[in-house]
Amino acid sequence: MERRGKQTWHFDNPVYVQATGTAVGPVEAKGPISDSFDICYDDLYAGEKNWELAERRLLKDAVGTALKKAEKKTKEIDYFLAGDLLNQIVTSNYHARELEIPYLGLFSACATAMEGLALASLLVDTGAANDVLAATSSHHSTAERQFRYPTEFGGQRPETSTYTVTGAGAVIVGSKPSFIRIKEATIGKVMDMGIKNPFDMGSAMAPAAKDTILTHLDDTNRDFSYYDVIVTGDLSRVGSGILRKLLQEKGIEIGHHYDDCGIMIYQQEQAVFAGGSGAGCVAVVTYGHLFKEMIRGRINKMLVVATGALLSPLMIQQKESIPCIAHAVSFEREDCDG
Amino acid sequence: MERRGKQTWHFDNPVYVQATGTAVGPVEAKGPISDSFDICYDDLYAGEKNWELAERRLLKDAVGTALKKAEKKTKEIDYFLAGDLLNQIVTSNYHARELEIPYLGLFSACATAMEGLALASLLVDTGAANDVLAATSSHHSTAERQFRYPTEFGGQRPETSTYTVTGAGAVIVGSKPSFIRIKEATIGKVMDMGIKNPFDMGSAMAPAAKDTILTHLDDTNRDFSYYDVIVTGDLSRVGSGILRKLLQEKGIEIGHHYDDCGIMIYQQEQAVFAGGSGAGCVAVVTYGHLFKEMIRGRINKMLVVATGALLSPLMIQQKESIPCIAHAVSFEREDCDG
Repeated sequence: MERRGKQTWHFDNPVYVQATGTAVGPVEAKGPISDSFDICYDDLYAGEKNWELAERRLLKDAVGTALKKAEKKTKEIDYFLAGDLLNQIVTSNYHARELEIPYLGLFSACATAMEGLALASLLVDTGAANDVLAATSSHHSTAERQFRYPTEFGGQRPETSTYTVTGAGAVIVGSKPSFIRIKEATIGKVMDMGIKNPFDMGSAMAPAAKDTILTHLDDTNRDFSYYDVIVTGDLSRVGSGILRKLLQEKGIEIGHHYDDCGIMIYQQEQAVFAGGSGAGCVAVVTYGHLFKEMIRGRINKMLVVATGALLSPLMIQQKESIPCIAHAVSFEREDCDG
Repeated sequence: MERRGKQTWHFDNPVYVQATGTAVGPVEAKGPISDSFDICYDDLYAGEKNWELAERRLLKDAVGTALKKAEKKTKEIDYFLAGDLLNQIVTSNYHARELEIPYLGLFSACATAMEGLALASLLVDTGAANDVLAATSSHHSTAERQFRYPTEFGGQRPETSTYTVTGAGAVIVGSKPSFIRIKEATIGKVMDMGIKNPFDMGSAMAPAAKDTILTHLDDTNRDFSYYDVIVTGDLSRVGSGILRKLLQEKGIEIGHHYDDCGIMIYQQEQAVFAGGSGAGCVAVVTYGHLFKEMIRGRINKMLVVATGALLSPLMIQQKESIPCIAHAVSFEREDCDG
């Protein structure tokens, strides 16, 4: 591992994606990239008796699928790195209980997936671990109840709102070569532009995405066009428009080299306001759709910039603004026999 | 860094405590080790207008004190690793906003301090960072409001309860030699013995402490007597009694080689039920009192085993049991000119 600049780790030892698993809910299953998900549920309960158990079921499915594809038993996984949006990250904790793998709990809201992948990659690169499992989840109904109002309340939401993805994504990272090599990770700083509206996370998070993208490019001495695509986690339609403007102000016309998971996961026609959000959003879109595009050779170099809003309902009640963060991981396609 | 066994990292590169900072509230300030804390407040508001801001103040004080003692500016710190008990770990997030240091958010309840210190040490050992700041906090009133009832409610609590410490502890880890060298870290697994009583965390957490201690000793091929003391974070009187029994069942009579931060931080006479708990407990006792004992030469080799209960109020309402975890870090005193 070699440090690049102030915030980037360059993994010079072999760090590869061994396998992934994704499980989603009904709205995602009707979206434009649903074929890329391993498991799709047609209702929010996923066969469980409450939504928190449903979210845990999705995480279990995602993890189980990744283990199966990697042909690994839990005993062969060195560490489990996970976090989610629920208070005290209980989805992750309670699944860690079942896995019996040494566990590192993480939280950076919707940036958690890339925080976990960054640390998992570091553990493998440095020899601290051979195989590491990183995962995250979110669920529309558990998130609504906790952060805003229970969905039965039927409250109205403005168009700037985003729609929390019901989905869990898991990835196993190891040194055995595969099509997808993990090259660098850039750890973000918290940015707060004074935005207080919890119904417009996109605007709050765009500056953090910009900061991490520019830092990554600076640290690696690259132009944005080095990447076939730079993908943010869940800025969605409002936030991604703002990010484009912020980059323009820095002389960067990112054009078609940019996309956002919150926009990719839903059709425009679905009643999802500005698009998808939630910790599971970047995970399922990256580990499902985007990795498949890489394996097919349509994407060769990709930077995934997961964006998180680090607020809580109590902070909003206390009239605080919304601090945000973005963590990035870069991937490159390599030819592979396996 | 060398892996030992399945769960332990042995830091063969230099990893030392550069400086610490501790800030506590009024109950801790009247306790038997209050002289060891850097800053003591005589009321729970710490000069702020609400308890959440008070907790953030304590964290700011602890971090500021550590930076001052290390003679470092925030720009010279590579990463900030932190977590706390509040939903979405907002104390840590909002202070990260102020520090402008790349930030990794963590959560393992009251085990967060050692999770952070373990990762910070790994970052320094592997060369991913030069200087890393790890911190955590808790506050009696913010925790009561969130996990149980607001303290104004005046609810009764059973004697098995523990009393959440109002305190924040920060440590800067780097490679420059000091009196306190960080030798190993053992990452725990989640253990759940089916306990459902949130008013008796000690009993729930003792098995996790036992598992991590035995794993650490096994991984390092050591006897418990290698350490002058093995210290748990917050099992307090009930949980520590159970731990002693669990170790006895494994043939270990740990005797005076064991202590607990939740017992050390308060006098028996203080109205604190079974003793102290909270994420800040292990941090302030370790970074305050225990490190001072090491510098004085009264402790040469110490294993700190931070214990966390990974529940949430919602999980208890849904009749779940309490999964727990324990993360351990070992310290050894070295002679030092500086």
